[in-house]
Amino acid sequence: MADRQEKAYKKICEISKHARLLQGISSLLQWDQETYMPDGAAAIRAEQVEAMAGLIHRERTGRKFSRALSALIDLSTGEVAEELSSEQVAALKEWRRDYLQAKALPAKFVEKFAKTTAEALIVWREAKKTSTFALFSPFLEKIVAMAREQADLLGYAEHPYDALLNLYEPDMTTKEIELLFSRLRKGLTPLIKKIADRPPVDTRFLFGEWEKEKQLAFSWKLLDAIGYEREKGRLDLSAHPFSSASHPTDSRITTRLHPHSLMSNIFAVLHEVGHALYEMGLPPEEYGTPLGEARSLGVHESQSKWWETRIGGSRPFWEHFFPLLQETFKGQLDHLSLDLFYGAIHKVAPSFIRIEADELTYSLHVVLRFELERQLIDGSLQPREVPDAWNAQMETLLGIVPKNHAEGCLQDIHWAMGSFGYFPSYTLGNLYAAHLFEGFAKEHPEWETRIAVGQLSFVRQWLHERVYRHGRRYATQELLQRATGQAFSPDPYLRYLNDKYTHLTSP
Amino acid sequence: MADRQEKAYKKICEISKHARLLQGISSLLQWDQETYMPDGAAAIRAEQVEAMAGLIHRERTGRKFSRALSALIDLSTGEVAEELSSEQVAALKEWRRDYLQAKALPAKFVEKFAKTTAEALIVWREAKKTSTFALFSPFLEKIVAMAREQADLLGYAEHPYDALLNLYEPDMTTKEIELLFSRLRKGLTPLIKKIADRPPVDTRFLFGEWEKEKQLAFSWKLLDAIGYEREKGRLDLSAHPFSSASHPTDSRITTRLHPHSLMSNIFAVLHEVGHALYEMGLPPEEYGTPLGEARSLGVHESQSKWWETRIGGSRPFWEHFFPLLQETFKGQLDHLSLDLFYGAIHKVAPSFIRIEADELTYSLHVVLRFELERQLIDGSLQPREVPDAWNAQMETLLGIVPKNHAEGCLQDIHWAMGSFGYFPSYTLGNLYAAHLFEGFAKEHPEWETRIAVGQLSFVRQWLHERVYRHGRRYATQELLQRATGQAFSPDPYLRYLNDKYTHLTSP
Repeated sequence: MADRQEKAYKKICEISKHARLLQGISSLLQWDQETYMPDGAAAIRAEQVEAMAGLIHRERTGRKFSRALSALIDLSTGEVAEELSSEQVAALKEWRRDYLQAKALPAKFVEKFAKTTAEALIVWREAKKTSTFALFSPFLEKIVAMAREQADLLGYAEHPYDALLNLYEPDMTTKEIELLFSRLRKGLTPLIKKIADRPPVDTRFLFGEWEKEKQLAFSWKLLDAIGYEREKGRLDLSAHPFSSASHPTDSRITTRLHPHSLMSNIFAVLHEVGHALYEMGLPPEEYGTPLGEARSLGVHESQSKWWETRIGGSRPFWEHFFPLLQETFKGQLDHLSLDLFYGAIHKVAPSFIRIEADELTYSLHVVLRFELERQLIDGSLQPREVPDAWNAQMETLLGIVPKNHAEGCLQDIHWAMGSFGYFPSYTLGNLYAAHLFEGFAKEHPEWETRIAVGQLSFVRQWLHERVYRHGRRYATQELLQRATGQAFSPDPYLRYLNDKYTHLTSP
Repeated sequence: MADRQEKAYKKICEISKHARLLQGISSLLQWDQETYMPDGAAAIRAEQVEAMAGLIHRERTGRKFSRALSALIDLSTGEVAEELSSEQVAALKEWRRDYLQAKALPAKFVEKFAKTTAEALIVWREAKKTSTFALFSPFLEKIVAMAREQADLLGYAEHPYDALLNLYEPDMTTKEIELLFSRLRKGLTPLIKKIADRPPVDTRFLFGEWEKEKQLAFSWKLLDAIGYEREKGRLDLSAHPFSSASHPTDSRITTRLHPHSLMSNIFAVLHEVGHALYEMGLPPEEYGTPLGEARSLGVHESQSKWWETRIGGSRPFWEHFFPLLQETFKGQLDHLSLDLFYGAIHKVAPSFIRIEADELTYSLHVVLRFELERQLIDGSLQPREVPDAWNAQMETLLGIVPKNHAEGCLQDIHWAMGSFGYFPSYTLGNLYAAHLFEGFAKEHPEWETRIAVGQLSFVRQWLHERVYRHGRRYATQELLQRATGQAFSPDPYLRYLNDKYTHLTSP
């Protein structure tokens, strides 16, 4: 590399690292907001978050950054300078993507969007509480109009929804999601039908009074076994569980202690630790470059789903942990068999609320949202028509119709936040996880025996090798291919669900 | 005000508010570091703190800011433009002071200073642990040299120590501190001598096993009674108690639950809440201007000392709270009389460690540090001579000589941090508090009766009216004069100590 190029690369790294530091600080502001911040501080916190967002945006779109970047990569064509290592080329391509994305939206638009969604969030909360779509409707109109404008500003090749999708899942297209989701739907519908014909599963023993200290103690048993590094993380309480990382050495999670449900905290912890391990496993020496960042929202979600469903929903896992759970809640689960317990935590039944849905019907909730979003963005569905479209789709997909909009089209926060294109990531996460898992199981055919005796570190080790340490080095499809030797397909997920739910003994 | 001036004033406010937001974020980073941050995150946190400091410094010394400031106040003479309100004039003078102070130190110097003190801190910890002054000595040499350079860069009229003093206490001079401290010393020495002749006070009942939950519950009883607003604050645990405010609506404190000492947490809470109430009481509408900031470190310390010693060290306070304390620790303090308790918490005896010293001898610890600092800065004392000078002064002032340097000249963190000029604020806090208290007692001659029945909100109200709401509107001396109608003098403090400790019945 020529001197001038080396200098430019160093400059990019320097600015990017600085922006990343600020982003980590933003994460802490939000973590604090959800955990320990006094309620009265909400207004000033919003201003602090906004100030940080402004600074980060300015650094990432500033002239110093774009000048250095242009010296090494053509911003319009993506062509890179010679004599760069393959890692540098990969990093530059990602930097360029981020830059173009950030630059595409004028500050005025970003501010207006932020203001509109801030107002919409307040109205949405009220609308949900009173189940009044009419209240939220004018805001949904505005937000959909802005999301369509956003898609135009970001640019796209085929479908405007592609542009929004790519905010969360780079390179993914609407067409591909349609294909994936249609195969998923075809695979899931008969399976759900089959299970619906079985006698209902009794889950009452999962509800009761579960002492808080014991719930937390059990959470830590799980976290320790999984290899969550205590000196680099925390477990706190918040209204909605989340994970928050500002660096591989500071990757925190929260959980929620449900007043009655035993499994709520357990699955939240398993889910969030998946996110946290990914962040902990990103290469610290690449901190500040794209190679030190998580690949995509879908890949992130694959990591949480991995621990929540593939490990934490596996029978060998509970062969080891169920006795420990019984011991923790001595006197409350004593005479329960593992089969009964395992059957109960896998109960399948169509329901209205996505975040409470079981593993099988969950994907259909996402399919529904994707369908509506795509139509809203391409203009074939009007915001005011959402309630009817929602209910009709619910009936088609799950055979049930919500009694009110609070448990229907008003249930999720995403649209009020303006996050169109986000929902598919949830299901992509499941698909990616299943794809990865087949590779893992092939390399570790003994995985069930090992997990059944509480060995889990080899699982994390495999993910570290195949996913964590690469950051954004490879595009998602390449990452998945390299990890398993197979091109990505939705088949592993369908195989997994069919296999698991067909063999589940109905108690 | 002319249009151009109005525009300039608005610009100053805008930049200043933005910098203040960032400063609040820095406070949160440090609060988190001392309370909940995982240990492993220390390195990245240091980088985050540094990044924020850099941003804040850049905003406060940037050309946009100085240009707007210059339009309204002459940066070299301090002469202000016409047609400004008295509040605006006050704010501009403070902005100019801050600007000149920040601008005086070149970035290179600030970085080198930060680097040197960061290294020194590590060495100091080791030196203190092993009581080896020789280890710390070369770093003290460097830091003193840099502090002297700092004084030169900042500029001063008479004594180089003035420049350092003014970092914490604007307008204060070395000469005035000498005067104040010499009167204090003359007043305290005979009083301490008199008390030393009394029979020793038994304080053993203040040490034992005090349940953590009960300690915290009692802390909250105090905080609620004092009027600390729960929705704008928090009480957490940290190794060293501190207060941390990022806004009047987010003013947090921490305490330490000592394994054996009952009063450690109680006095820490009373001290820190004094700081926190001051921050909570700053005018929110002035947030971002100097009128929304605390006057000085000395005035801040007067607020903590007020609640710790003047209220929390008063007999009527314990007339109300001692029964509650007994109730909280049922079975542990039952047969103790208020007199015995009150005598015990006011035990006076010369000791080596400043932060454990009683109210009377504490000031002499500060006098000692001031004397050494002044000589180190004017060059009449060499860093390597510090241990001997320390021990000699200890003997003169308190009649005792430390057995080792850990309980002597290595005990405090301040010099390793490069904070020369800081120590006097502790004693100024006591002097200011006493001065203010005479004004308060004159206006509320019934204060003892009211406090004895647990009424405390009128105390906070008085401070709000006389201190909190003014921010940096008036110089310290004017603030003190306006609050009480009297020119500031050290007499009230000596009167208070004489009166209190002469009348304390020795049990």
